[in-house]
Amino acid sequence: MRSASAAGSVANTARPARPRPGSAGSSPTNEAPGRSTRPQGRTIAMKIGFIGLGIMGKPMAGHLRDAGHEIIVPERKSLGADQRATFTVVADARAVAAAAEIIILMVPDTPDVEAVLFGPAGVAEGLAKGKLVIDMSSISPTATKEFAAKVNALGADYLDAPVSGGEVGAKQATLTIMVGGEEAAFARARPLFELMGKNITLVGPNGAGQTTKVANQIIVALTIEAVGEALVFASKAGADPAKVRQALMGGLATSRILELHGERMIKRTFNPGFRILLHQKDLNLALQSAKELGVALPNTASTQQLFSACVAAGHGGLDHSGLVKALETLAVHPVMAD
Amino acid sequence: MRSASAAGSVANTARPARPRPGSAGSSPTNEAPGRSTRPQGRTIAMKIGFIGLGIMGKPMAGHLRDAGHEIIVPERKSLGADQRATFTVVADARAVAAAAEIIILMVPDTPDVEAVLFGPAGVAEGLAKGKLVIDMSSISPTATKEFAAKVNALGADYLDAPVSGGEVGAKQATLTIMVGGEEAAFARARPLFELMGKNITLVGPNGAGQTTKVANQIIVALTIEAVGEALVFASKAGADPAKVRQALMGGLATSRILELHGERMIKRTFNPGFRILLHQKDLNLALQSAKELGVALPNTASTQQLFSACVAAGHGGLDHSGLVKALETLAVHPVMAD
Amino acid sequence: MRSASAAGSVANTARPARPRPGSAGSSPTNEAPGRSTRPQGRTIAMKIGFIGLGIMGKPMAGHLRDAGHEIIVPERKSLGADQRATFTVVADARAVAAAAEIIILMVPDTPDVEAVLFGPAGVAEGLAKGKLVIDMSSISPTATKEFAAKVNALGADYLDAPVSGGEVGAKQATLTIMVGGEEAAFARARPLFELMGKNITLVGPNGAGQTTKVANQIIVALTIEAVGEALVFASKAGADPAKVRQALMGGLATSRILELHGERMIKRTFNPGFRILLHQKDLNLALQSAKELGVALPNTASTQQLFSACVAAGHGGLDHSGLVKALETLAVHPVMAD
Amino acid sequence: MRSASAAGSVANTARPARPRPGSAGSSPTNEAPGRSTRPQGRTIAMKIGFIGLGIMGKPMAGHLRDAGHEIIVPERKSLGADQRATFTVVADARAVAAAAEIIILMVPDTPDVEAVLFGPAGVAEGLAKGKLVIDMSSISPTATKEFAAKVNALGADYLDAPVSGGEVGAKQATLTIMVGGEEAAFARARPLFELMGKNITLVGPNGAGQTTKVANQIIVALTIEAVGEALVFASKAGADPAKVRQALMGGLATSRILELHGERMIKRTFNPGFRILLHQKDLNLALQSAKELGVALPNTASTQQLFSACVAAGHGGLDHSGLVKALETLAVHPVMAD
Repeated sequence: MRSASAAGSVANTARPARPRPGSAGSSPTNEAPGRSTRPQGRTIAMKIGFIGLGIMGKPMAGHLRDAGHEIIVPERKSLGADQRATFTVVADARAVAAAAEIIILMVPDTPDVEAVLFGPAGVAEGLAKGKLVIDMSSISPTATKEFAAKVNALGADYLDAPVSGGEVGAKQATLTIMVGGEEAAFARARPLFELMGKNITLVGPNGAGQTTKVANQIIVALTIEAVGEALVFASKAGADPAKVRQALMGGLATSRILELHGERMIKRTFNPGFRILLHQKDLNLALQSAKELGVALPNTASTQQLFSACVAAGHGGLDHSGLVKALETLAVHPVMAD
Repeated sequence: MRSASAAGSVANTARPARPRPGSAGSSPTNEAPGRSTRPQGRTIAMKIGFIGLGIMGKPMAGHLRDAGHEIIVPERKSLGADQRATFTVVADARAVAAAAEIIILMVPDTPDVEAVLFGPAGVAEGLAKGKLVIDMSSISPTATKEFAAKVNALGADYLDAPVSGGEVGAKQATLTIMVGGEEAAFARARPLFELMGKNITLVGPNGAGQTTKVANQIIVALTIEAVGEALVFASKAGADPAKVRQALMGGLATSRILELHGERMIKRTFNPGFRILLHQKDLNLALQSAKELGVALPNTASTQQLFSACVAAGHGGLDHSGLVKALETLAVHPVMAD
Repeated sequence: MRSASAAGSVANTARPARPRPGSAGSSPTNEAPGRSTRPQGRTIAMKIGFIGLGIMGKPMAGHLRDAGHEIIVPERKSLGADQRATFTVVADARAVAAAAEIIILMVPDTPDVEAVLFGPAGVAEGLAKGKLVIDMSSISPTATKEFAAKVNALGADYLDAPVSGGEVGAKQATLTIMVGGEEAAFARARPLFELMGKNITLVGPNGAGQTTKVANQIIVALTIEAVGEALVFASKAGADPAKVRQALMGGLATSRILELHGERMIKRTFNPGFRILLHQKDLNLALQSAKELGVALPNTASTQQLFSACVAAGHGGLDHSGLVKALETLAVHPVMAD
Repeated sequence: MRSASAAGSVANTARPARPRPGSAGSSPTNEAPGRSTRPQGRTIAMKIGFIGLGIMGKPMAGHLRDAGHEIIVPERKSLGADQRATFTVVADARAVAAAAEIIILMVPDTPDVEAVLFGPAGVAEGLAKGKLVIDMSSISPTATKEFAAKVNALGADYLDAPVSGGEVGAKQATLTIMVGGEEAAFARARPLFELMGKNITLVGPNGAGQTTKVANQIIVALTIEAVGEALVFASKAGADPAKVRQALMGGLATSRILELHGERMIKRTFNPGFRILLHQKDLNLALQSAKELGVALPNTASTQQLFSACVAAGHGGLDHSGLVKALETLAVHPVMAD
């Protein structure tokens, strides 16, 4: 296994001149995996397992590959030609874990992580002392603590490192990454994180990353809802919602959500972005976790009902700023005509 | 009273180097940008009535006075020595309106504005064609439209121009001012607004200023509540709320509220700021207006109940970030130990 | 003034054979007040002022008249021919109070009661020691305490005695009457209450009647909402809502509301009944009173938002069981096809 | 297998003079199970599997046994001496299904039903054409439809038949039973249901029983909450909550909950009854099902947060009428002193 410091140099050096997809030439990615013929040892490519090549995972794995790392993935019929050309494809999650130093997961939900880690032919069966599992999915903080304990019992390290920033953030490598785990494991993973994101924080021990992600999703949903209530109110009161938003932008009410999602509500651009169905899943995670913890989340609970109303109306595939439509339905008044 | 000429120019020119109270002596304006020779009657001090010298009104009137305007106020036992020394004190609101060109109101609530304007010896009795009434109180948008119509019927102009930014903003002349009314009246008042605030927007016709203020208060309250839910959740889940807040600051969840009020929740600094009792009054305005308009505001409604819980617990005098205490009570867990 | 016991006999004897409208003849009501030529002196007719002959007040006053009491009302253009024929019409509320022993109010809202009692030519100007004011309107418990104190200061007694049961209960004299005030005043009024209602309770001192009415309206609204959530859920899950209601009727979920309003939701009979707009007014009273008291009413608050959604959709004139329509809109699914 | 009509006679004849435990005489209950010396074929004892002998299941199985049926249960260390004496104990759920005609489940939650039915050595492995599975647990309506389909595929019938009425109802055989499934299967099971409950309704196809139970739990929880809001409000307003409850009992606000749970709130008798933790589980079922269906349940969602607050405060083991404590905490005022 390469040392953390060596790995770290990937980030330090690769970032400013990270090769982009298509900028072939000196790129090591189309060479045979493992052969590591990168010039002058400037950086030492790592063997990175990556499980979950969805909308988010695909560009994330791409950034790691473009930086010179070997990416090892399990066989899937859905693998594209370029992925087969530039990734190392092995049989299953066990084989990924057996071949890689660091195994990254980016799958939809808690049961998926559990299946990938501990199901038949899962990661756990291929783990060994010194390996590192990084779960970048957004899942239950409670389950995360259990998964980490089981991985640690096998001698491997575990980081929970969910992200925010959506597909755009994944493509532009500007994800916010919220990490839970040990300092040493974090230091080892940081160079990889820096290839995928910008705002990277070790929040606390295992589970703290997922907890932070839940907190993030609570605030984002409830702020969207707040902006929605304000704009529907203002519009039905006869004010121009665009001017109202403008007037509020400089003051205490200002937020990234007022800026981005407020504009979407006014311009009626509800193409995702981050889908209502996904945010609904995340608030469900928040509410289930809060029930376990004994925390009352009144506005998260009521906002979740508005998401349900959106889904009932067929808007589950819209950007989460489309939450405003539930409020518009109740007021029988759109912020702006569609 | 300062000379008319000295005063008026302030608005146009003084902004970059506005003299602060106490920095008397030398010219308030240091030279006007470009046209450098001020005295010569280039600007004319105005006669400004100011009714409502409370926590907000006092510094606001002070800025106008310091810029050279004559401030005319109604007799009150509570007038301080310096106010009696620098303001023109007349008998009542009618006398204020009779003597002033522009009459500014800064009083607590809708009935107060109504009484000052239309009660016995009120402003309406002293109004005449060409005068301008500016209500900078935070009151009902609906009532505002009625008040404006009645004032217009007397030949005078009306602006609703509520502010946000609190006592600090009033003292530092950094208030956000949201204005409803006619363009011409706005143009006439703008120099005065610029002496009191920074982010000044004409949102629409009469009522639009108050509507925008209501929208502002909805967003601010609900974002505080959102940050509160997130931090109580994270803290009870075992994460360090200070690190969680830090991790969220760069991402989609970021807001002025997360920055300022999030910090207050963590540092337990609940000295106002803006009192819970005042925000409760403002949300009541929002909910009453929404009822009249036929707008459902589910999270404003539930947040108002949390404010009630704070008041019941004796926290009505705390800063509105203290809303988190209601959530902490429900979770039987503080974000941080007090 | 007649003694309470004499008055009481009116109720005891008149009830079984209460003359109905149209059974004129022996009725004393078109004779001069005080001449009391009723047969056999079995009961002694009282002079009762009645202010507020609306949907509720009209049948209530009719029952009192039919029992042989003289009903004194203020002049209104809207008085019908039969009312002019059987009521004593005087100039204004002051004249009503001057002529009557007991003055009953049945008006829409708190400001109406205040105006009738303490406005120009109001009841207070006609009151004298020993008279009794009974406010049967549904108004603020807090304001009630003030009104009672002011009436007491004039030497008169005060009862707050709001009712539930609606127009049907008013017509059938089956109203529930919730009374606040002194025992003696209650004893004096009881015979009259028994002519108008069935379930008559002295709950406590002044204000307690109104408080009980508010409590009643909270429970009724929230139970309607609960039945609505249950039936929308069951219907969208594919169950027959009529059978679900039937299955629940015998168990812990049973209530008058499940029986009556549940049936209306299923049979789609939303003609009032008790209008959504009126229940919205009552919940506003609940929420404003709760704010004053420092009581959080989370589900009253959220239910009020659903009433607003109904009003926005043009359903304010429907029976309050129509609240279910807001839930149906959110679920995009009616309990039953309309 | 006995014919449905024969089985039916058990209920028809046993009900009027159902022998109670201890009421010896001609009762079949003091004879050894299975020994079948029952007189003249009046009733034909059935072989009934019963899985889940908890607080509810134990008395329910007892009633079936006392009526003369053979009860077959899987081996558990927790089986008591009397159970071992009067039940037929077999190895596991598969053996129960193999030996019994009708298999009743009464277990805590959806995953438990799934495990008992389809886990290793589960019921499914012992099923055969003509057998009947009755799930009397309270679980997911959606999952129920899947379970029923899988059982039907094995040639067996399926009824979902959750109950309400709690431990008391189970002991007194007065449970409300809400059934989903085919008419024929219902007819076959009805005699058994009549030994355990009183209010028995076939609501619709599979899933409809569970749906009705969810609807029941929604109404019960929200009515408790409504009564709680009303009584906390009334009490803090200074009225006597016992008198308020009394005054409301005759009117539109009346309900079983106002009667029973209202009294518990006033008398402060919060010993269960039905535990808050169990009702919280049921509302979670409601909310998860509603999410799947696309139904917004705003007051169920907010009430669930109040249950969480109760659990956080250590009140999860109280009767669900203890929900009022969350409202009391917010109001800083108990309905009555504890």
